[in-house]
Formats: sequence, structure tokens, C-alpha cells
Amino acid sequence: MAYNLIKKSEFDRLIAFDGNWELKMKLFAEMCRFNTFVAVKKAGSGHLGSSFSSMDIITYLYLNELNVLNVGLDNEERDIYFSSKGHDVPALYSLFYAVGILPEEKLLMLRRLNGLDGHPDVRIPGIEACTGSLGMGISKAKGMAWAKKYQKKNGNVFVLTGDGEFQEGQIWESIQAAAHQKISNLTVIMDHNKYQTDMLVEDVNNIEDIVTKVSSFGWHVVRINGHDFNELKETFTNLKYVIDKPKMIIADTIKGKGISFMEKPFTETISGKTYYRWHSGAPDDENFLKGLDELINSINNLAKELGIEKIEIPENKIESKASTKLDKEFVVEAFGDALVELAKTNDKIIVLDGDLAADCRLRKFEYEFPDRFIENGIAEQDMVSMAGGLARMGLLPVVNSFASFLAARANEQIYNNACEKTKIIYVCHFAGIIPAGPGKSHQSVRDISLFGAIPNVTIIQPCNSLETKKALEYCVNQSKENCVLRLAIGPSPEKIELPEDYEFTIGIGTELTDGKDAIIFSYGPVMLHEALNAHRILKNANYGLKVVNMPWLNKIDLDWIDSITKNYKNIYVLEDHSIIGGLGERILNALADVHHLQAKKFDIIGLDDYPECGTPLEVLEYHGLDGMSLAKRISGIENLETIIEKSQANIYSDSAPQ
Amino acid sequence: MAYNLIKKSEFDRLIAFDGNWELKMKLFAEMCRFNTFVAVKKAGSGHLGSSFSSMDIITYLYLNELNVLNVGLDNEERDIYFSSKGHDVPALYSLFYAVGILPEEKLLMLRRLNGLDGHPDVRIPGIEACTGSLGMGISKAKGMAWAKKYQKKNGNVFVLTGDGEFQEGQIWESIQAAAHQKISNLTVIMDHNKYQTDMLVEDVNNIEDIVTKVSSFGWHVVRINGHDFNELKETFTNLKYVIDKPKMIIADTIKGKGISFMEKPFTETISGKTYYRWHSGAPDDENFLKGLDELINSINNLAKELGIEKIEIPENKIESKASTKLDKEFVVEAFGDALVELAKTNDKIIVLDGDLAADCRLRKFEYEFPDRFIENGIAEQDMVSMAGGLARMGLLPVVNSFASFLAARANEQIYNNACEKTKIIYVCHFAGIIPAGPGKSHQSVRDISLFGAIPNVTIIQPCNSLETKKALEYCVNQSKENCVLRLAIGPSPEKIELPEDYEFTIGIGTELTDGKDAIIFSYGPVMLHEALNAHRILKNANYGLKVVNMPWLNKIDLDWIDSITKNYKNIYVLEDHSIIGGLGERILNALADVHHLQAKKFDIIGLDDYPECGTPLEVLEYHGLDGMSLAKRISGIENLETIIEKSQANIYSDSAPQ
Repeated sequence: MAYNLIKKSEFDRLIAFDGNWELKMKLFAEMCRFNTFVAVKKAGSGHLGSSFSSMDIITYLYLNELNVLNVGLDNEERDIYFSSKGHDVPALYSLFYAVGILPEEKLLMLRRLNGLDGHPDVRIPGIEACTGSLGMGISKAKGMAWAKKYQKKNGNVFVLTGDGEFQEGQIWESIQAAAHQKISNLTVIMDHNKYQTDMLVEDVNNIEDIVTKVSSFGWHVVRINGHDFNELKETFTNLKYVIDKPKMIIADTIKGKGISFMEKPFTETISGKTYYRWHSGAPDDENFLKGLDELINSINNLAKELGIEKIEIPENKIESKASTKLDKEFVVEAFGDALVELAKTNDKIIVLDGDLAADCRLRKFEYEFPDRFIENGIAEQDMVSMAGGLARMGLLPVVNSFASFLAARANEQIYNNACEKTKIIYVCHFAGIIPAGPGKSHQSVRDISLFGAIPNVTIIQPCNSLETKKALEYCVNQSKENCVLRLAIGPSPEKIELPEDYEFTIGIGTELTDGKDAIIFSYGPVMLHEALNAHRILKNANYGLKVVNMPWLNKIDLDWIDSITKNYKNIYVLEDHSIIGGLGERILNALADVHHLQAKKFDIIGLDDYPECGTPLEVLEYHGLDGMSLAKRISGIENLETIIEKSQANIYSDSAPQ
Repeated sequence: MAYNLIKKSEFDRLIAFDGNWELKMKLFAEMCRFNTFVAVKKAGSGHLGSSFSSMDIITYLYLNELNVLNVGLDNEERDIYFSSKGHDVPALYSLFYAVGILPEEKLLMLRRLNGLDGHPDVRIPGIEACTGSLGMGISKAKGMAWAKKYQKKNGNVFVLTGDGEFQEGQIWESIQAAAHQKISNLTVIMDHNKYQTDMLVEDVNNIEDIVTKVSSFGWHVVRINGHDFNELKETFTNLKYVIDKPKMIIADTIKGKGISFMEKPFTETISGKTYYRWHSGAPDDENFLKGLDELINSINNLAKELGIEKIEIPENKIESKASTKLDKEFVVEAFGDALVELAKTNDKIIVLDGDLAADCRLRKFEYEFPDRFIENGIAEQDMVSMAGGLARMGLLPVVNSFASFLAARANEQIYNNACEKTKIIYVCHFAGIIPAGPGKSHQSVRDISLFGAIPNVTIIQPCNSLETKKALEYCVNQSKENCVLRLAIGPSPEKIELPEDYEFTIGIGTELTDGKDAIIFSYGPVMLHEALNAHRILKNANYGLKVVNMPWLNKIDLDWIDSITKNYKNIYVLEDHSIIGGLGERILNALADVHHLQAKKFDIIGLDDYPECGTPLEVLEYHGLDGMSLAKRISGIENLETIIEKSQANIYSDSAPQ
């Protein structure tokens, strides 16, 4: 085995050791950091920066403050802890392994199917709340704390938040209401590591002076060093005497704490701006080995200082992986480039970002047009309504966030803007089921349905770079109504080829392959790849599947759909979305309109449950959305594997965005 | 004409009069109050309390501070004012009439089709933003202010907010971001009238000390008397010197200012609790005449004091209306009663409210079980996530708000809770297009689509009291998953009769009438009434329309739908919702599943545009959703009117909830 953890027995030995308490805590946390580092490297993705900044806090909590390890995970009198930001969950998993809640094999299955979700999920033992989208934690903890009082149960509720998370309005809703409702069995700890994603909180959307702010809402607030175990102990001890109001600890921490190069930002040579690199993503091989060395040294030194026999640290070797092709296409890259090009001749274009500028490929625009770039922080509702104000003044706002956050968190604000009949372009990044590592808070499979019933919105998902450029041009120059541009965030599994004479015409899709037995409509690089896989597999079985790229998710030209489907008895729509509220239902309606459903089979294939967490291929297979599953479902041929080798059909990169 | 306004010429005479400035302002505002009072009485609904509290502020602004009346409504250099809370718009309309922006006939068409929307809409001259759902205003104003700077245009942006509105998280998002973004050409004025809906802000969810809070976010904040014109003048003058940060004026005002009995709360005899009565709703005849007298006296006294010739005040007579039947059924009333009954034997039931307890008929529960009632204020996201925490602790939360706010504002929070596989009941009040007076921010025609793609949610809309009781029992005692109970808020236009042996079985609807030529599925009292109207009309034309009540909006029993539709060639679904994402698409999918669309006509009838504002009948007719329009569309018979008298088919109460 290439990746190996410090064994639980070593943690047990440490806990049992009679020695200096503070050193024991430090050593325990450092050993957890080691395991976290290994688990994230093996997973290929995960959030190290805030896992490391929160490690000392949760070590203190579980080993000293919470009764949960004594009374049991299901005991109604237990203390409750969870992380509202959620992406620090690799740290918590490592701790859970160290104290016996999770077995070793699970920790080595981070972000894998049947392993551990990329963000907290209550199906994992010890996890008290599903989190991963920011800002909900204090509200949820408040509910738990209220329930404890109502049910006359002992136990306090502790919730960890980020610092950038304090840009979310719901945080302030919950702070105000918790004070009013006198929720006194609640303690919030802010892991104040100063960086959100890759920039300083104070540069993105400053939350200081946070002590004064939260205090003004009637909370008891203290600010401490979140890496000082004695200060943590003293603070939590003192807070027991505060019994009339909710409590907050602002814990100053260091993002990436424990590995020297992860504790520092870096300065980009092009822009001269300073960014933090370790918010998400696994280290490359070199940094992995460098980081491991530091952690090993630190563990050895602490063990020596404590006087405990040397901690047994396993060897870790780099697993050789199939080399990732460097020429992968990213539609989001094409979007970023096209945005800059269009903006050069259109000074109405204003770009808004919700702290995801790098992922959304907005940095080029930001450097080129700094006075037309609005960084709004993690405040999607404010961003969207601000865009509404810009649009009312005649500007053309291009609003960016991940699809799951933008479409859902700011849904009413989007509707309100749309009522004003202005034009705004909403760019929904990270749309669809892949990458599946981050889990269901991030995978966006409801966004089409959330825009669907707004009367004046056009929803488009392009499948390749060319179509992305044409789609953005359409949105900027042609569309009279609001546009939603739905973009895959990862590398395209294959470059979808469009005909030479390709025209991007509203309501009309493009045939990618011929095939006489069935027709399948899909969109975006991920699912069109699977549809094409199905086509290739079925071709070998003499079953003809016509694959149609349909980027217009809610505009269907009736003549076109009539003509393209009329010779087919088997019609399929493959969604990168729930089967409800996506392209399939629009096509079904269109077919009903043209009275074209006589003696036809119509089948929408997509998600009918929550999207699973895992690698792209394992998750697509789980949901029956990979090429082979599709080919079987469509053709009804069971022994397809014997006809074609499955392995050649699915080529995925595992380098999932975070 | 029974309702008459003080003429614009009288306002002109006052403006031109050379006299004491403060007295002129006071008189102008009082004359606007008079016209507001008349307009709301004529409309039958509207928000008088906060119209009156904000009247002096907007009078000061438009006549003294804003340049808009001089430079014109479309001038790019204009100062911009709008109200974020929006329900105070009758006051603004009266002022717009007084200064010549709106003609008299429009002001007397408040909340009518082609008249003035119940909440602000940019299609009305002078209205700068669509508002009506709370909390978005500062964000939007921030966008406008940013745009002015970017476009190098003069003019400041002023936005009025409520006080209860400061419970919305977006307000704090925008306050934090506006300070960070140094939006210095923005002034927020809080109309701090102390009451939200019908209770004191300090009792619902206290926002004090608001000056300290907002100041801690880096704003320049002052607190003044919002009815003192000299203080207003001095304050706005001084604020011109604050050029480095956003500014906020906390204006202490009196809700209902100007009419003595509207300035006071009343104490309910049953509960002993104190409520405010004039947040919304028109006065009854007696109070109207009493209030008019007070305003007339005040106007006469001010005119005398000012020394201007007596203001010509027109007579207003009570319009005799058809008496409203008192035995009207309200499904929401049945809900409130059933909730109390079920809670008697189930102490897991916890009720959460977002400042709409009276409208949602929760007061009975609150009095019966005060320790199980959580008043969360206008903070829907916090309420929903708090419910998530309660559910995780084994309780059964019943979450209440208006459908448009609950389903949209808290959409991501609802999804997050659902991921945890707990059970929560979301009660979406004021669902559907009627009452149409409040306008599109309140009419909920997207909520089914917003819940649709969440895997573990059952959506139900009952049509009468009996079915409401059965639906709630199902949600509480039988459902394993989350439930959405979609409720009409107004009086049922007719009591829908269900069969004696009615059973409430998942996925199965009930035939209300027979009819051989076409079948129509619908739900809820409003649209079933129209479907039944269509049935009655068509019966006279020898066209048989079978009407089916289908309360299960996303669960269709395939055997049942197969069997009930098989003898029909014409299948209709009538939505109290957008045609997208409602019951129709679920039925269409079900019919596709049972291969049952051969040679059939399938038609979803519902909203394909924004819902109009007006009386129920005029709005239903506008959208072609009234019985007569339906009958024509279904039968294709054009001269139906000559066959049946239209008038007997539509019986509506105009007493719309607010």
C-alpha cells in the first residue's frame, strides 16, 4: 500500500501516556495532521488549509470539552459539535479515526463512493449535520440547542465557522435571532485563519472588527489564539459561567498550520497580487513529501519533548498514476477568455464574483478591467441584488458563482431582478454531477429547475470551447432576456466535435452522430461524452444511437424537434441534472405540443436521488449514467460487455476541481 | 363617484404658497395621507400603517432633497429613491399624484389591473425598483450607487427600509459589503415605526441597539425623529459632509401616524396580548369615516396655521358593496385548527413562524402551546435551518411562511435539511395567483418547481377544510419524507365538495364531476372553482368536462392515472402555478411512463408570464384562467356566453388578504 496512516494504536498509546497535557494535545493534533495530509493526497482533492487551522481546536474539543466520546454518539445527553464551513472535514475524519469512530479503510476512502463524503454528511458516524454550503451552521446549531432545552436534555452545542463565512447574511440572521431567543447552550467558534479561498478576508469583504460587531448583537465574545491549548482550556472553562447568552470564540489561527509552506501565501508573478494556494486541492508529489517530512519532524520532536516512546510513523510512497493529459479542454477557460474579448468592445459588461474568481476563471478579466470587476465575497444574495441595481442603471452584469449556491441561495433575488425586465447574465459554474468529490452540497443537479419557471430567462449549457464562446456572445449581444450560462468546471472528458458549419441558433441543437434505432438529447461535455460512449458501444452491437447536442435547456424550436424526432420510436434525454425540471421535461412538453408522442417511448435519464460522492466514473456508474449503463438501458442488450471492451469507453481525469 | 381625492391643483397651490416651510411640508404630507387613505379604502386593501409612518420622510425627500422632480424621471444624473420594504407604496403613489407623476385615475386604481401594483414595480413611472419581498433594497441601491460612480454620473441613491426588515440576513450582507466597497453615495433611511406586521419588533426578534450595530459595520449612523421636518433637513444637510462611507438614518416614526386610532396597538381580549391592527388592510366604513374626519381637521388646522386659503377637500361616501358572506371557508383556518388537534397528542410538533402568525392562522397554536411555538421574525433562512436542527434532534418542525418567500428565499436551506433525511413540514401559505392585489412579489407561482427536484419531498395542496385536515394528518403521521403543504390564503370561492367516502390516498385524486368529452386535473380551492365553473358552463353547451381534484402535486399513482385518462382524448391540467414545474409536468411524465399519450391532446393551462395585479376575477380573466376562458379553450366553442350567463359562474370575494 502506497499511502499509510499513523495507526490508531499509536493514538491510544498517546492518550494513555501520563505526561504534560499540552504536549499530548499538540502531538495528537500533529499526528492527525499527518493522517489528514495522507488521506487528502490519496483522495486527490480536499481542503488542507482549513483542516490544519482547525485541527487544534477540534483536538481540544473532543479530548477535553465534549462528553460525546464518553456517553456515545447517539446519547441524547451528548454534547454536539459540527463544522458549519464543512470543508475542514478531513481533519475531523482523521480525529474520528484516532478516537475509534471511523476505521482506517474509511479514512483512506476520502471522497470515494462508499467512503467519506467531501463535505460533512450525517450518514457518516459522528457527523451531526450536513454542511458544505456556507452560513447555515449557527442557525442549525440554534435549533439543536433549543431542542435540548425543550427536551430537558443536557449537553451543549458547539459549532465551528469560517471567517469568510461571516459574509453570508444568514450568519447575521442567526446571530440576531439566537440572542433574542436567549440560546445560551450554544457556543460558536470562528476558525479565523484570515484567508477565504485564496485571498485575505480583509481584502475580499472585511469582517473586522468582528468582536465589536458580534458583541453589538448581544453575544458574549472572546478572542483567543486558536493554536494555544492552554488558552483554549481557560476560555472554555470560563465560558461555563456565562449562562444567559450565546457565546462566541474568535480563534485566531493560521491557515495551513503545521506545514511551513502551507502557512504562507504566494505572490503571483503576472499580477503581483498575493494569493493563498492551499485552500483546496491535494499537494503534488514534491510538496507531499516535503510536507510529510515536516510533520514527521514535528511529531518526533514533540514525542521527544513529551518523553513518550517514538511514535511509529508509516512510510508513504507516491502512487504512480496514469499521466494526465495536459491538452484537456476546459469550457470554463473558454468562458473566461471570451468574457475578456467581449468586454474589450463593451464597457457595459461588469463582472461580479462571490469569492470563486480562480475557479470561475475570472482573474484574466479582473487584471484587464479592475474597475469593472466587483468582488463581493461570500454573499450571493447581495451580489445578485447588487447586479439588479447595476442592470437598472443600464449596465450588463455577469454574475458568477457555483450553480448550487447561485441558483438556490439567491433564487428570490434572481426572480426579483427578472421582474424588472432588465438583462443579467448568471453564470452557473460547477453545474452538474461531476466532479463528484465535493459531495451533494456542491454538485448542482437542481439549478435548471430553479430557473425554469421564471418567465424571461434563457438557460444554455455549452459542450465545448467553441460553443461556450458562441453562447456567451449570444447572451451578451443577442438575448433580450436574462441568461443562465451553465458551465462544467472540470476538464472535458473528451473534446466534443461540432460540425464545421456550426451555427448557434436559439432552440436548435446539433446532431453529433447518426443512428437509426434511437435518438438521445444531451448537453455539456460530461454527459455528451457518456452519450457518445453509448453510441460507440452500441455501434459495435449494430444498434444505431443518434446523439444530439442540445445546449438550449429551456427553448425548443418546435419545427426542429418535430423533424428530428419524427423517424424515431425511442427518444431519450440524458440530463446532467435531476430528471425533474431539466431539459427532458421541456422536450417532452414540446413533443406533446407537436402531437408527436404517438406510439413512442420517451425516457428521461438523469438523477432521481441525491448525487453520490466519488470519482467521476464510479459515481456515473452508480447512477447508471456512464456510457455502458446507458447503452444497456437504451438497447436492452444485456451482454454488451462481451461485445465491446468497456475500458476504452470511459476516459476520465481524476483531477477534480474543489 | 364615491371616492374622491384632494386635487393636484390644491397641492400646486400649496407648493406655490409663500409661507412657513415646515408647515407647508406638514400640510403636504397630511394631504397625501388623506389621498392614501381614500385610495386604500377604494382598493379594499393596502398597507396604511407604514404608508403613514414614512409619509413625512418621503415628503421631505421629494420636495427638498432629491433632484428628480427637476431633472426628470429618466435623467441619468437624477437622485434615486426607492422603498425596500415596498408595502408603503400607497404613500409614494399619493405623493407621485401630488407632484404630477401619476394621474388621478391611476391612484384610484390601486391594486387593480392596469392600475397601480400592490407593491412597487418599475413599470409604474417614478418607481426605481421592484420590491415587496424584504431585505433586498440596500444591495440593489448599492448596485445603483456603484453604477453612478462607474458611469461618472451625479446623483445620490436613497433607500427606505423597514425596521423588522433588519432581521433579514441580506440586509447585513449588504451593510458589510457596502462599507467594504466604500459606497459613499448611498443613504439608507430606516422607517423605524417599531411594529412589524402586528407585533413590536423588540418582541419578535429585537434589532436594537441598531445604531451600535450598524456603526460597528463601519457606517455613519444617526438617529432622528422621522416626523420632524427641521430635523430631517438638518440631518440630510449634515450628511452631505460625510463622503467616505455609506450613511444610515434611523428615523424614529409612529406606525399609522396621522390618525389617532391607527397610532395605537390594541389588546386582544382572549390572549391579553397586544397587537397592531393597521399593518395591512383597508379600514371598515366606520373607521374610514372617523379617520377621514381626523385628517380633514388636521388639514384645516394646518392650513389655518400656515395662512393659506382653505384646502378644498372632496367628500367621500361609502360605496355600497355586495355583502360578503360570512360563512366562507378558509383552508388555512382548517390548517390552524388541525395543527392544534394533532399537537395535543404529539409533543414532537414544534411550530416556527416568520412574522406571519395571524395570516398563517398560528395564533391558536401559539396560545395553546407557547413553549412549542418559535417566532423567528423575518429571517426565513435562519428559521428553516433552525428547523433542520430541531429535526435532527427528533422533533417535527412545522415551518410557516408565505410560499413565495419560503420556497425561494430559503431554498438552499430546505435542500440542505432534506439531505439529512429528517422530516420537516413546510407550510407554504398564500400559494398561487390569488389574491392578486399584493402583486408579483407575493403571488407564488414558482414554489412547486422550486421543491420539485428535491428527492425526498411530498408536495400537497388541499382543496377544502376536510382535505386540509387529512393532508396535515398525512404529513404528521404517515409521511416518511419531508412534506410541503401548499395552502390558499383567501376565502375559498366555493366550498369544494368531496365524496362521502373520501379517502386521502397517496398519488390518487378524486373525481368531482363526470363528463365524457375532456378531463381536467386541478388542485386547491381557487382553480378547482374555475374548473368547476368551466364544467358548469360547458354542461349547458352539452360538452362533458370531468373535473378531477389532484392534491398530490408530485406523486402520481400510475395505475390510477392510466385508468382515469384512458377513455379521454383531451387531457388538461389547470395549474395555480407556472405551466413549468407544476402538476402538469408530473402528469405528462406519468402518461409518458404508461405509454398513454397516443393520439391525445395534452394541455397544461397556467401562468406563462408574471402574474398580474388586480382583483381575483380580473386577473384570472387576464390570464385566461377563469371558468369562461377555460370552457372556451377546452371546447373550442366561441359563443359560449350566449349559451350561459357568465355572471353566475364567478363569485369572488374581494376581501383579499394582504
